[in-house]
Amino acid sequence: MEEQFASVRIAETPLKVFIDQLLRNAGSAPDAAAAVARAVVDASRRGIDTHGVRLAPHYLRCLYAHRLNPAPKLVVTRSAPAVAHVDADNGFGHFASYRAIDEGMAMAAETGIAAVTVGNSSHHGATGGYALVAAKQGFAAIGMTIADAAVAPFGGIRAFNGTNPIAFAVPVAGAEPMVLDMATSSIPLNRVHLRRAAGTELPPDVALDTEGMVTRDPNRFGALLPLGGSEYGYKGAGLAAMVDILCSAFSGMPHGNALTPFSDPTVPGPDLRGHFFIVMQPALFQSLAVFDARLSAFLADLRAQPAQPGKRVMAPGDPELAAAAERRANGIPVDLTTWGALQEFAARQNLPCPAEA
Amino acid sequence: MEEQFASVRIAETPLKVFIDQLLRNAGSAPDAAAAVARAVVDASRRGIDTHGVRLAPHYLRCLYAHRLNPAPKLVVTRSAPAVAHVDADNGFGHFASYRAIDEGMAMAAETGIAAVTVGNSSHHGATGGYALVAAKQGFAAIGMTIADAAVAPFGGIRAFNGTNPIAFAVPVAGAEPMVLDMATSSIPLNRVHLRRAAGTELPPDVALDTEGMVTRDPNRFGALLPLGGSEYGYKGAGLAAMVDILCSAFSGMPHGNALTPFSDPTVPGPDLRGHFFIVMQPALFQSLAVFDARLSAFLADLRAQPAQPGKRVMAPGDPELAAAAERRANGIPVDLTTWGALQEFAARQNLPCPAEA
Repeated sequence: MEEQFASVRIAETPLKVFIDQLLRNAGSAPDAAAAVARAVVDASRRGIDTHGVRLAPHYLRCLYAHRLNPAPKLVVTRSAPAVAHVDADNGFGHFASYRAIDEGMAMAAETGIAAVTVGNSSHHGATGGYALVAAKQGFAAIGMTIADAAVAPFGGIRAFNGTNPIAFAVPVAGAEPMVLDMATSSIPLNRVHLRRAAGTELPPDVALDTEGMVTRDPNRFGALLPLGGSEYGYKGAGLAAMVDILCSAFSGMPHGNALTPFSDPTVPGPDLRGHFFIVMQPALFQSLAVFDARLSAFLADLRAQPAQPGKRVMAPGDPELAAAAERRANGIPVDLTTWGALQEFAARQNLPCPAEA
Repeated sequence: MEEQFASVRIAETPLKVFIDQLLRNAGSAPDAAAAVARAVVDASRRGIDTHGVRLAPHYLRCLYAHRLNPAPKLVVTRSAPAVAHVDADNGFGHFASYRAIDEGMAMAAETGIAAVTVGNSSHHGATGGYALVAAKQGFAAIGMTIADAAVAPFGGIRAFNGTNPIAFAVPVAGAEPMVLDMATSSIPLNRVHLRRAAGTELPPDVALDTEGMVTRDPNRFGALLPLGGSEYGYKGAGLAAMVDILCSAFSGMPHGNALTPFSDPTVPGPDLRGHFFIVMQPALFQSLAVFDARLSAFLADLRAQPAQPGKRVMAPGDPELAAAAERRANGIPVDLTTWGALQEFAARQNLPCPAEA
């Protein structure tokens, strides 16, 4: 939401139907297409444009380039009462991740906490969306995904870690769930591309040039710095390492720096990505009444904190809740580059485009 | 390790015996005293001086001020096959946290993953130490603890979050475990006190003054900024919120901003702190051979990354491993303020002090 872009507005449901049909016409099995359309429209509705509809053309290119298995058969294996693995069969990560969260809820309803790893997967969009599915059904969830090298390790000069996000969602009595969804770099890689296109500088202390020196020139970009920048980046890099290990060693997949780049759809797969989810049932930890009261008290206290002039203290996910309300009412903005690409795919498929909202 | 201090060196075992005896003479039951001595000496050995022996005088003052229950009876309740709660009975957090990790391992050995909350607890020192106990026995563990208000929320002007740390430890085949242990602020509160005493400036963008403006003057200090500083601090604050919720709502305790301050031993208890642990058995996720190979490949690749001039890319916990080796050989440095305080307590108890190493 931090970069403005020229866009058209499309209502949520027709947009989801459109993307679903584009994916199926490009060869995707209906179940996988539905998962991808659901995930990208959900992310865009919540204002997470970097991981929303913007990615649909890329996913379509991956299908046309046969980089992915268009009709994956998910295999779910329980290896312990509270642990399962989803083999994504080299299909879209979204499809496998929704399945993983379902399996996690089924286990956590009995055991209180459960972990689900996903292997042989691909990009899954916004990680928080899967945690949110659990939170909407009364579970808390943590989600993580591996990504290919984009972020320098602390003290390093070359991309090694992915932007390796951590998501956390928790149900709130009488309100929407609270969702944290954050990359472990200061800025997303996408922002570098946007600044380069716009001819504007990068913020200070968020990126290195190709020689490994801190830079603000997007044209000299070599790698992102981890959250914490050049002084405290050992913390962001440490979190990225935790995410990498949970998504790779625990799922049996290679680590981030060994993955094929996601950005080029013509690079042959398999992507071999891993994801990692933890699902918890708060009612099996203690009285749900106490849980609800404690959590609501925390959120109320947080949101009531005094703020800097012109600012407001928000809970994680509050900006996304505001975006969702606005976009439900006015339609989902699709930037013109993405919209042009989707229109081209639609023309190729003789598929009519949805009207603007 | 980042601030130099004048110190004496004491060998690890006599130092642990000394602190254990001081605590028992101050009224602590032997089991609780042993846990505290173990925890603080372990932290100091690993170079985490802020959470090591430096805290022993404070714990002694808490005992003498009857702020804590000196002889807690821990009550462990399993509420689901993979969830347990440890009631710390208002005693030292260290004692309850070691017990929680043991319980987590016992459950995770069956279920693959387990969660243990701790309630009615107090400060537990360095969170990573408990995760490390699990990793030394072949389990992976995540640890978190709540802390009283020290860090401003993003956009806020007053302390609200604790430094709410996240720890992660994982066993490495043929090597010491990898341990990440990080506060979700850029710097610890302790560094502000040290800079004030030294008359030196704070680093940029890590603290607010009492009016809520970013400051480098330790004498005008009001609150720490979350990791990410004034631009990206919503990430550090988001992590702090996650830690707070897992340690409070899930354990039934109040959130961090509702806690009594830890720093003043004369404030009456109970401290009502919560901690949160997740323990996992990697061998119940998949083949341990694959896990070991994947993790070792990740760490080798990370440590081999090209570095900035004069630097070396390290894995989380590598500096602590180096400190531990040095301190095992040369004794544990105890800063002169702490050593003077311990000598005073020893004189009061007619207890001989250990010789310098």
